[in-house]
Amino acid sequence: MEIEIGMAKSGRRAWGLDDIAIVPSRRTRDPEDIDLTWQLDAFTFEIPMMASAMDSAVSPATAKEIGRLGGLAVLNLEGLWTRYEDPTPVYEEIASLPKEKATRRMQELYLQPVDPELITRRVAEMKEAGIVTAGSLTPQHVERYVDAAKAGGLDVLVIQGTVVTAEHVSTRVEPLDLYRFIREIEMPVIVGGCASYAGALHLMRTGAVGILVGVGPGAACTTRGVLGIGVPQATAIADAAGARIRYLEESGRYVHVIADGGMRTGGDIAKAIAVGADAVMLGSPIAAAEEAPGRGFHWGMATFHPELPRGSRVEVGRLGTLREILLGPAHENDGRRNLFGGLRGAMAATGHANLKEFQKAEVMVAPALQTEGKQLQRSQQVGMG
Amino acid sequence: MEIEIGMAKSGRRAWGLDDIAIVPSRRTRDPEDIDLTWQLDAFTFEIPMMASAMDSAVSPATAKEIGRLGGLAVLNLEGLWTRYEDPTPVYEEIASLPKEKATRRMQELYLQPVDPELITRRVAEMKEAGIVTAGSLTPQHVERYVDAAKAGGLDVLVIQGTVVTAEHVSTRVEPLDLYRFIREIEMPVIVGGCASYAGALHLMRTGAVGILVGVGPGAACTTRGVLGIGVPQATAIADAAGARIRYLEESGRYVHVIADGGMRTGGDIAKAIAVGADAVMLGSPIAAAEEAPGRGFHWGMATFHPELPRGSRVEVGRLGTLREILLGPAHENDGRRNLFGGLRGAMAATGHANLKEFQKAEVMVAPALQTEGKQLQRSQQVGMG
Amino acid sequence: MEIEIGMAKSGRRAWGLDDIAIVPSRRTRDPEDIDLTWQLDAFTFEIPMMASAMDSAVSPATAKEIGRLGGLAVLNLEGLWTRYEDPTPVYEEIASLPKEKATRRMQELYLQPVDPELITRRVAEMKEAGIVTAGSLTPQHVERYVDAAKAGGLDVLVIQGTVVTAEHVSTRVEPLDLYRFIREIEMPVIVGGCASYAGALHLMRTGAVGILVGVGPGAACTTRGVLGIGVPQATAIADAAGARIRYLEESGRYVHVIADGGMRTGGDIAKAIAVGADAVMLGSPIAAAEEAPGRGFHWGMATFHPELPRGSRVEVGRLGTLREILLGPAHENDGRRNLFGGLRGAMAATGHANLKEFQKAEVMVAPALQTEGKQLQRSQQVGMG
Amino acid sequence: MEIEIGMAKSGRRAWGLDDIAIVPSRRTRDPEDIDLTWQLDAFTFEIPMMASAMDSAVSPATAKEIGRLGGLAVLNLEGLWTRYEDPTPVYEEIASLPKEKATRRMQELYLQPVDPELITRRVAEMKEAGIVTAGSLTPQHVERYVDAAKAGGLDVLVIQGTVVTAEHVSTRVEPLDLYRFIREIEMPVIVGGCASYAGALHLMRTGAVGILVGVGPGAACTTRGVLGIGVPQATAIADAAGARIRYLEESGRYVHVIADGGMRTGGDIAKAIAVGADAVMLGSPIAAAEEAPGRGFHWGMATFHPELPRGSRVEVGRLGTLREILLGPAHENDGRRNLFGGLRGAMAATGHANLKEFQKAEVMVAPALQTEGKQLQRSQQVGMG
Repeated sequence: MEIEIGMAKSGRRAWGLDDIAIVPSRRTRDPEDIDLTWQLDAFTFEIPMMASAMDSAVSPATAKEIGRLGGLAVLNLEGLWTRYEDPTPVYEEIASLPKEKATRRMQELYLQPVDPELITRRVAEMKEAGIVTAGSLTPQHVERYVDAAKAGGLDVLVIQGTVVTAEHVSTRVEPLDLYRFIREIEMPVIVGGCASYAGALHLMRTGAVGILVGVGPGAACTTRGVLGIGVPQATAIADAAGARIRYLEESGRYVHVIADGGMRTGGDIAKAIAVGADAVMLGSPIAAAEEAPGRGFHWGMATFHPELPRGSRVEVGRLGTLREILLGPAHENDGRRNLFGGLRGAMAATGHANLKEFQKAEVMVAPALQTEGKQLQRSQQVGMG
Repeated sequence: MEIEIGMAKSGRRAWGLDDIAIVPSRRTRDPEDIDLTWQLDAFTFEIPMMASAMDSAVSPATAKEIGRLGGLAVLNLEGLWTRYEDPTPVYEEIASLPKEKATRRMQELYLQPVDPELITRRVAEMKEAGIVTAGSLTPQHVERYVDAAKAGGLDVLVIQGTVVTAEHVSTRVEPLDLYRFIREIEMPVIVGGCASYAGALHLMRTGAVGILVGVGPGAACTTRGVLGIGVPQATAIADAAGARIRYLEESGRYVHVIADGGMRTGGDIAKAIAVGADAVMLGSPIAAAEEAPGRGFHWGMATFHPELPRGSRVEVGRLGTLREILLGPAHENDGRRNLFGGLRGAMAATGHANLKEFQKAEVMVAPALQTEGKQLQRSQQVGMG
Repeated sequence: MEIEIGMAKSGRRAWGLDDIAIVPSRRTRDPEDIDLTWQLDAFTFEIPMMASAMDSAVSPATAKEIGRLGGLAVLNLEGLWTRYEDPTPVYEEIASLPKEKATRRMQELYLQPVDPELITRRVAEMKEAGIVTAGSLTPQHVERYVDAAKAGGLDVLVIQGTVVTAEHVSTRVEPLDLYRFIREIEMPVIVGGCASYAGALHLMRTGAVGILVGVGPGAACTTRGVLGIGVPQATAIADAAGARIRYLEESGRYVHVIADGGMRTGGDIAKAIAVGADAVMLGSPIAAAEEAPGRGFHWGMATFHPELPRGSRVEVGRLGTLREILLGPAHENDGRRNLFGGLRGAMAATGHANLKEFQKAEVMVAPALQTEGKQLQRSQQVGMG
Repeated sequence: MEIEIGMAKSGRRAWGLDDIAIVPSRRTRDPEDIDLTWQLDAFTFEIPMMASAMDSAVSPATAKEIGRLGGLAVLNLEGLWTRYEDPTPVYEEIASLPKEKATRRMQELYLQPVDPELITRRVAEMKEAGIVTAGSLTPQHVERYVDAAKAGGLDVLVIQGTVVTAEHVSTRVEPLDLYRFIREIEMPVIVGGCASYAGALHLMRTGAVGILVGVGPGAACTTRGVLGIGVPQATAIADAAGARIRYLEESGRYVHVIADGGMRTGGDIAKAIAVGADAVMLGSPIAAAEEAPGRGFHWGMATFHPELPRGSRVEVGRLGTLREILLGPAHENDGRRNLFGGLRGAMAATGHANLKEFQKAEVMVAPALQTEGKQLQRSQQVGMG
């Protein structure tokens, strides 16, 4: 639906997950019969979930626990764990910074250079625990650091930036050729973020096994304020799902659409899948776990940009253990615990047996009334992309 | 109106009661001439109203008073009154729990098993008062407990869950066959909740005399957050009314559409009927009565789910007697007292003589501005389904 | 634009004044050249403005001042001034009531019967001041009291209720026959409220010289909450303007459309006229004058309904003299002073020379962002109809 | 898209910058390669930016600094600097006024007459610094003061009022003939504000090199409240861009569309250009600079209107130096520092090499959720036009 903004400009109407509601069908299903299995390349996960490569959420230790709980955690290979031999004091300092000084001090803390040897050791540490290992690198540095990651035994590589495209233009440096790089690297690669049909389609054509969808999806994500860029997440996912169909037709390959950002409750996750995602990537819900390295604080990759910081260090509190947050049981009713119990419940209540079926669930456009509480919750989100 | 959410997903636009306003016609009518009578099966009620099977709202005592005032109260036959010989201390404890401990402690209190003998006694107690008796059971347990309810003299059975469909699928247990069950039971059955045309139509085909419409209708209902499921109530009612027409054509039977949840004022009730409901089911307005067992607190069936609680124990205060709330007089102007005086006033001001006429009232889509007060009020709602 | 609410119900989209903005044209005009004159029947007013028949706003004294300033004030002939020989102590008590007791006590104060002799005296007092006199009566009582008003020398009769239609149906009492009554009474009659094309058209056919348009127009008007009835004001006015065209074609008579309620600023007044009103009726802006009898408080006719009160006694403060509020100068920038200077400025900035031209101004649908301040202001409105 | 407001009135749907989001494309670009150059008439600016002719933002000193940073500052030639030999004490008093007295006292302070000799001296002072000099005059006074400005060496004349049109009608005074005036004056002229296709087109035909677009664009701008006039900025810009195309076709001349008002972050600026602006005019971001003459306060030209003030003196604080605000680096993440780094980042992330390309960026209609913080920020805007 093209809308005229003015005489010389039109645009499509876009919708966020808050604008969407899943509609019951004429069938319900036993929650015990619901299959949440997610199959990515050669790997099978019990829940369709990745943990964001954010220093506040994923450490080698939480990566292991998330792996045991059935998900896939991504370590930020250009983060604190690969810049500092022992990042503990850095985490402690970040958690203790007063709000008005946080951004400036974090800009300094992240000036510490990345140490390739630490990359190898962190990956190896996760690998030894028997989990599927995943780590993220930016397009600018992936060629420099990827061998260190391979040396540690990395299983899945994530190439991630605020916006990553298959065609990066520069007159100064030779940009990464994603097509060639992915074809040559002997590892499944997930790449993103993106937030348009064309962007998603071209990333799929690079040979990636999955793409991350989400640019400024959250209401409090400051990318929208700082850059003016951002596609509400329901539309971004549904557009990427359209690219997935197109690319499947042209290539026979099925590339996973992973919704990244803006989901806080089980209902948000259910809606992301109901509009077309194969899996979700979670940041702030993981950072709010008792085991999370962030000590109740959360920040994103763009928070410490030296000249144009986007995103905030926000206090997310500690809602429960990783197990409680992902698999329950919940003793609060706000939807922020037992996230995948919520997904299971949504699929049961609408009669869908597995994720592929649930992607076809009926949804309605039903903008949520914004209660005061909701506004407060939203303001605790972190913009990552 | 199908809206494109993104390339690979579309959905209809849905509307809540807050988005709707009733339009005056060219005729007005004497309020004294308005007929609010509601005829359900063999029973006639002076007001088109059921009280929700929520422990905070309906006790045997309030059921009797509601019956005397012209409505139909439904006792939760799997609630406190059938789990505890004397639930008074339990109610007192719930009312005294600090907010942060309420959900967890209520999960424990509701682990006490249901006693079939208490079911029989509670129903009999209501029956002796000469009112029409109604009680609710969940689909999972209705076959186990229905005989105890019949033994007490139950007049109307309500089969209720968050989402109930005519087709429940399970590989573990033999699910309830609603078609067979309703045909064989010698009692009018009301079943729900549902919130779609197809869901409503199939429930009507089971032989039920009425269906409950409403899944996550309220803005503060946490089902939408926890599960992502929910249809704004005006659309849910109007869709169910469409199913009622279709089923009437195919069968000659008129099945009642009972709007369940999300109504707080006389205006909300009027709007529910103006978009197609035959009657309304009220929870929080009843829980806010001085006689209500909840002592100024309100909670729903899903509040105490052991692993995935949805809905809250909220403080609703005590607004007045049941009579004042339902029939007035009101000494406050917020529309929360004299609910059916409000309905009568709405019908008079728009010139409609009875409920069937009022279902044809002209309405407009006119989203209410959200004032701060409104937001606060909404946050006191309880999600039941 | 008919919108499907659900399978069995549709409705038009309606818009409030807050949803509308006036668009500059390619011409501007000298403010001194703008003609704000309003001609109603044989009377000419310098500004297109009536003051609402609300006890908080219009006393005989403020009626005289409003007349001098160029407007037409309507005295409530069933209000405090015709129930009490000296209403001063009653006003003082109302202004001193604590919030939680106000509605109940006002219900009592308004039980004092109307004294026809006082009607005659109040009207005569205004008449002696040389202003055009106007008074309001409800449809139920107009036949009982109109002779007393005529005896005092009433110039313009206003017949007013929440919703008034040309066809009131009652089996108990013989309702007022508006067609006959207006034809026989020797006085111009204004009648309302109404809020639909059909309702407006039929009121025009009664022979009234003007109709009041507005049922629950304000966001905080409790008629929408209590009764569920209400048409956003921009749509209500534009629909009534449609009826005015139709009636002009069928009869050759031009009936004035007077927007009643929901306007607080000069911008609101400008928008009401730009969508089709001939004049506006103001309540709360007048009640906020230093001279207003309400002593900084404001309440409407429905506030003291004995069984179903709608509307509130709200504190509106004292913003300035009547002259400052209507004609300026303003020393605040919130648009609540110099209301008709604002109208003049709007007409100048968009190049329209007089009210009939300004009714054809281009407008856009441009929902205002709701700032916190706006919400607070809105919550001070009073629902009168 | 014409929307029916009611039977007798329709209007187009209009959109603000907050309703718009820029969509990533399938290409990204090196930020170092982005060209932000803005060419206006014979002048080239490193950033597409003008500073508003508001006394709180532009003094001769800040004009020089803004010029050095690559933008074009406009001095208000009817403001404090041309009314007072030394305006410093006046600025100090304004900054010290309590909120409730500010409007009234500023009305008095601005009664001091404009001194043409001061106009000449202020312009000359800026000219000596080697920057491009620009000053604003109102249509009413431009003929009286323009020679004084020329005498000082003015490079660019801005003729500005709330709404300026090519056709001003007055029976009292001979209005400015813009066509003749601009043709005869030997200087590039920018004129505004305007906010419609027709208004923009006719201003372009006067011979102006640029037009200012924006009437009441900000949410807290009180022009919308006081006058009811205002076009949301995205629509206003896109309509003016439509007029630019039309006028280019009919004349071969390209007239610049300068978005004026309502932009606070780099994202806002990016969106203004993405919907069609050639450059932006900034007020409150400049007033919030440490060097700004307003001492942390901001007010607009209409704030001190003697009879109908519109706009407020608001506290904007001091966010950083002019350099930090315009070019960075930022140490906060709210988008209010490094505004043109934000624009550069937006163009890089969406793959556009220069401003003309970026005007063709894909955008979506994606109304931002209003968080509480956003509302607070918005309430600090000043309505200038």
